[in-house]
Amino acid sequence: MLKIGILGGGQLGRMLLQAAANYPVETFVMENDPECPAAHLCHHFTNGDIKNYEDVYRFGKGVDALTIEIENVNVEALEKLENEGIKIYPRPSVLKTIKSKILQKEYYRSNDIPTAAFVITNNINELRLQQDFLPAVHKLGEGGYDGRGVRIIKTKDEIEKGFDKPSVLEKFIPVHKEIAQMVAINDKGETALYPPVEMIFDPRLNLLDFQFCPAEIETRILWKVEAIALSVVRNFKSPGIFAVEMLIDKNGDVFVNETAPRVHNSGHHTIEAHYSSQFDMLWRVMLNYPLGNTEHILPSAMVNLVGDDGFSGEVKYEGLDEVLKTENAFVHIYGKKETKPGRKMGHVTIMSRDKQDLLHKANKIRRSIAVKSV
Amino acid sequence: MLKIGILGGGQLGRMLLQAAANYPVETFVMENDPECPAAHLCHHFTNGDIKNYEDVYRFGKGVDALTIEIENVNVEALEKLENEGIKIYPRPSVLKTIKSKILQKEYYRSNDIPTAAFVITNNINELRLQQDFLPAVHKLGEGGYDGRGVRIIKTKDEIEKGFDKPSVLEKFIPVHKEIAQMVAINDKGETALYPPVEMIFDPRLNLLDFQFCPAEIETRILWKVEAIALSVVRNFKSPGIFAVEMLIDKNGDVFVNETAPRVHNSGHHTIEAHYSSQFDMLWRVMLNYPLGNTEHILPSAMVNLVGDDGFSGEVKYEGLDEVLKTENAFVHIYGKKETKPGRKMGHVTIMSRDKQDLLHKANKIRRSIAVKSV
Repeated sequence: MLKIGILGGGQLGRMLLQAAANYPVETFVMENDPECPAAHLCHHFTNGDIKNYEDVYRFGKGVDALTIEIENVNVEALEKLENEGIKIYPRPSVLKTIKSKILQKEYYRSNDIPTAAFVITNNINELRLQQDFLPAVHKLGEGGYDGRGVRIIKTKDEIEKGFDKPSVLEKFIPVHKEIAQMVAINDKGETALYPPVEMIFDPRLNLLDFQFCPAEIETRILWKVEAIALSVVRNFKSPGIFAVEMLIDKNGDVFVNETAPRVHNSGHHTIEAHYSSQFDMLWRVMLNYPLGNTEHILPSAMVNLVGDDGFSGEVKYEGLDEVLKTENAFVHIYGKKETKPGRKMGHVTIMSRDKQDLLHKANKIRRSIAVKSV
Repeated sequence: MLKIGILGGGQLGRMLLQAAANYPVETFVMENDPECPAAHLCHHFTNGDIKNYEDVYRFGKGVDALTIEIENVNVEALEKLENEGIKIYPRPSVLKTIKSKILQKEYYRSNDIPTAAFVITNNINELRLQQDFLPAVHKLGEGGYDGRGVRIIKTKDEIEKGFDKPSVLEKFIPVHKEIAQMVAINDKGETALYPPVEMIFDPRLNLLDFQFCPAEIETRILWKVEAIALSVVRNFKSPGIFAVEMLIDKNGDVFVNETAPRVHNSGHHTIEAHYSSQFDMLWRVMLNYPLGNTEHILPSAMVNLVGDDGFSGEVKYEGLDEVLKTENAFVHIYGKKETKPGRKMGHVTIMSRDKQDLLHKANKIRRSIAVKSV
């Protein structure tokens, strides 16, 4: 039986482990919190720091293969482990590229993948020289996550909001639609594409707020999207599962925004709404099984449950009853003991044949559920 | 957060825990094997004997509610726990009735639920007096499980095969179809019926071998089946989930064979093929949430994976690849380290719009998969 480790024990690890229990695999998780969402669902939990070289190396030496829940792991340890024969999904070279917004943009450019025009600014002085490049989005090279490390700079008056560290300054794209496509690729290079999802963000939190699948896009644009997503994934030369986030402008031009080389928030709806979920699919990749069926069973909407403003401490959910009495609404509570404003605490997937019905139910669910503290 | 315990840590517990991770619930399992299929998927594992009064009582005192994976638990401890305010799904009174084939048959009779005619035989001498009752099925009053404790007695020559202990002698029903229906019932008495499944048994092992859902039965018989299943469940006056196994003869008469007051092998297909699975449904009952949607997404077939003859020891699966490349075939391996002939090691669910396609795929999967030892 293969031994497979997950670096990180949050909700992605939790849902991976729910899916793992279908297969013959011995599971390992490392996280610095023994009460994290995934801790009680693995065979072996290790209390350790996923950013620490020694911790990651020691954890990796005990397994046949490793995957990640978050990019922010010690890549040097993974490189050494890979050299010593441990399989890593995705390969450390991919993590290196993706962890740095600068290397990631250069990756797209060097592989002829359409992405917003950009310049690198190493400090605020270099940024000040880029007034002609505005309006633009300034993204911190390393360490940004879930909206942190991203600033919109519309005019030269706002330039001082920028980062004084190595960053990417991207031309502002007037977004018509924001979409994401999950793509799995196995060791043989076989790929499986999920239908793209369409996203609506909460501008305040910059968290995924609402999501529909399949995205409503014209067939000719869908073909472009799929070709681009495949190109992103294939050029990484690494097995795994990837979420390719793309922007579509009014002209139907498609730009890759960023890529997550792992299971992803934008794929949560696949648990109920697709035959093979993103979590099932990653196990198929790691266990060398045939890829699964990515088709949707029904169209779906996904609503993130985030901690309400003004509430911190032991979490209390309100309105779960209202959600669960909605036909084909599925709740996932991540088991985090403490809530705080904006923290991802769970999600709800709703399935329905009819898009208007989905929108209606998603809105109703957002209104009826509350994530507060005791 | 409610604390809920499961007595027994086999595959039913395992699949219950996969579903539990969607909800805010703290899970507990007791089993006498720390490497059992469910041990690593709960928050708290207790090594203990589910048949032992002290073990069950102590375990139950640490939780808000209890459920079971198998009927063969210490009911006296559960009765005391119920008196002390612990919720038990199903109620101990139900377990008492069901654990005894004699009380179970009397329950059907006293509630006007159709079941095969029967007499009670307390020993082999009493059995010998029942020659006119043959052909019949002799069922041991207590302790039978998965085909053990059942003997078919066709003629008086076979009467010595019978049990010399309190047993039920049932008139042999010429079975046209064997079906099972899952029914959930919550604390308010609201019910949810899954479509009945149709079963084909392996006569040698007397294990569920093949199963189709929804069963192919005429509407007028379906109505009868549903009314009977509801009557079985409602008269128990207990929340929980129940598998009501029924026989249909050539005249379309329906007889209750037996009832399992818990999640059941005949409901495994609901994980993928129905919107709310039997496991999801039991959590909804225990957490006082609205009941889920029992409709099927697609028709399904379910194949049990049992240990092949001639192989005992550390398990090795062959042909999983062949199964997993079948469109919409889903594998569940229960994580048991050791196989032995006839042991339930996993199952496969196949979904397809077309019954012939299902039959074809189910047969192909049975032929391609093997459960051997290293």
